[in-house]
Amino acid sequence: MPRKISDVGEKGLIKRILSKAEKSEFNSTFLDKFSFKSLSDDAALINLGDQYLVTTSDMLFKSTHFPDDMNHDQIGKKVVTVNVSDLAAMGAKPIGIIVSMGLPRDMLLDEFEELIEGILDMCSKYDMKLIGGDTNESQELTLCGTCLGIVQKENVLMKDGAKPGDIIAITGPVGLAAAGFEVLFNKNKFQDLNPNYKDHLLKHALNPKARVNEGILLAKSGFITSATDITDGLVSEIDELVNANNHRIGMTLNEEMLPIPEEILEVADKTGKDPLEFALYYGEDFELLLTVKKECFKQIEERIQLYEIGNVTSSGKIEILHKDGTKNIIKPHGYEHLSPKKG
Amino acid sequence: MPRKISDVGEKGLIKRILSKAEKSEFNSTFLDKFSFKSLSDDAALINLGDQYLVTTSDMLFKSTHFPDDMNHDQIGKKVVTVNVSDLAAMGAKPIGIIVSMGLPRDMLLDEFEELIEGILDMCSKYDMKLIGGDTNESQELTLCGTCLGIVQKENVLMKDGAKPGDIIAITGPVGLAAAGFEVLFNKNKFQDLNPNYKDHLLKHALNPKARVNEGILLAKSGFITSATDITDGLVSEIDELVNANNHRIGMTLNEEMLPIPEEILEVADKTGKDPLEFALYYGEDFELLLTVKKECFKQIEERIQLYEIGNVTSSGKIEILHKDGTKNIIKPHGYEHLSPKKG
Repeated sequence: MPRKISDVGEKGLIKRILSKAEKSEFNSTFLDKFSFKSLSDDAALINLGDQYLVTTSDMLFKSTHFPDDMNHDQIGKKVVTVNVSDLAAMGAKPIGIIVSMGLPRDMLLDEFEELIEGILDMCSKYDMKLIGGDTNESQELTLCGTCLGIVQKENVLMKDGAKPGDIIAITGPVGLAAAGFEVLFNKNKFQDLNPNYKDHLLKHALNPKARVNEGILLAKSGFITSATDITDGLVSEIDELVNANNHRIGMTLNEEMLPIPEEILEVADKTGKDPLEFALYYGEDFELLLTVKKECFKQIEERIQLYEIGNVTSSGKIEILHKDGTKNIIKPHGYEHLSPKKG
Repeated sequence: MPRKISDVGEKGLIKRILSKAEKSEFNSTFLDKFSFKSLSDDAALINLGDQYLVTTSDMLFKSTHFPDDMNHDQIGKKVVTVNVSDLAAMGAKPIGIIVSMGLPRDMLLDEFEELIEGILDMCSKYDMKLIGGDTNESQELTLCGTCLGIVQKENVLMKDGAKPGDIIAITGPVGLAAAGFEVLFNKNKFQDLNPNYKDHLLKHALNPKARVNEGILLAKSGFITSATDITDGLVSEIDELVNANNHRIGMTLNEEMLPIPEEILEVADKTGKDPLEFALYYGEDFELLLTVKKECFKQIEERIQLYEIGNVTSSGKIEILHKDGTKNIIKPHGYEHLSPKKG
């Protein structure tokens, strides 16, 4: 039987693209001037002398990315934030975004206006501009953002570069968005949840913010050896940082250090789930994951709130040191598009 | 009853975006350095000193843009060509493209590989690179390309700038792609069509090419006062060039001069349609539409194949001079997404 793309999964498909792209030939000497880096990174880099122009693109679909509880203002804000977060992970200052839209023809004009206002509000918040886009008719609401940013070459943060001994850190708690979606999708289970907890969780699920200023400051420090955002889940992104290197590295997470807030423990308790699942495997948190030179960690921590969560090793494995002192290998199984359905 | 977006149509929606975007405020002095132009043009321009970085984005959906007869290699090629054509219309040299993909999970792996090879083949043809992208799961095949290009500032072609007295010209025949789709969608009517004609028409419908080299040469000439591509239909794009100006201009097309090949006359004859309809209103031809300084037309025509099709006036109207000497006002009704359905 011919194989389907869902037999391979998103990461398998991307590997195929990269391998084919490497074999492509170009004659142009013109291109050398604008030499590109990092088809495999969160964004592509274009050489502009002292600076890189960083471009990133993310496509979002109603059925996958926008739950029914998300209004059009929040949808507009999210498409900007998702794209800006990829720039933040590279330490770039966003300058503009192009948003291409596929719109169902029965969408209300008020909803459309809310969507545009959400996009523009968020552009204003990140101090960037809406610089283009097009509108099409489509079956489901589909938004594709392409964001442009600028970073000094010597500051750019990439996925590769972590070294054994580095500290692994994160810019905020993990699992809040996932717990928020749990509350949204199972409203009846959470009627007696502390309203402050509920507000906080829903804010993370429906109104995420990208860590732009943190990304820029971290990049400028010169202390960061590698970085990414954790929108696809913490362990999945840890795996990305490990695999981005040509040399063998590993990473060990320290369970005790993971910033898992009380709200998540409550949600886990009410659903019978392990709170660690929310923290390790679910995505949608727009925090940055970093590796930091050990001797510099104190210095950078004084300027930016960072949570130390583990350290880089030379083991070639991703491990977790549990609270009871035992250690396990963990495998990434964060959200992956087009992955084989579990039987 | 609350209004729907289909009550307003694509052009109405874009006007709303522009008006809201104009009211948005930005505090950044940083942005001044990268001042943007032309949210209303085919692409956005970013200031890079002597050059503009031109960025354009187009989203394509299986149900709207890829007929069943189009294979995945052709689909991959088309997403690149559609985006490159917007750069060609501005005289820019394409340097790279990001392709975001929404893929249905039952897509065959062979189809996916064909799609990627089509994208890479076309990148190679246009001497540019695939520089990024992401893959998602979606209900229908959805491709969003974002193309980056470079043009010297003094050469950039824009939609505004046509002056009364200029010659209106086009880089190739009009209506071939439309006639090709007519053949594809009504195969039984065209069984006895001259096979050479059929091949030629289907090539234009299924394997379009963007006029990149022509765009660059035209831009360098300094003779072109305004330009766009005609993928949304000739009259619709004429209307865009007229409305892009602050001063009042009009345009008169000369029916006798319109390059409508014999193939189109045959297809029109077999379907009982007016061949002029194919030429004026249907889109999908990837030719460039230009206005040229009258005194320079001969000089540029010696270097690039151009068809003179009319002239710019000060009438404020779009008119057509028919073969019998009569003149009519014509209104744009090219393909517009999300336009009200005709009752």
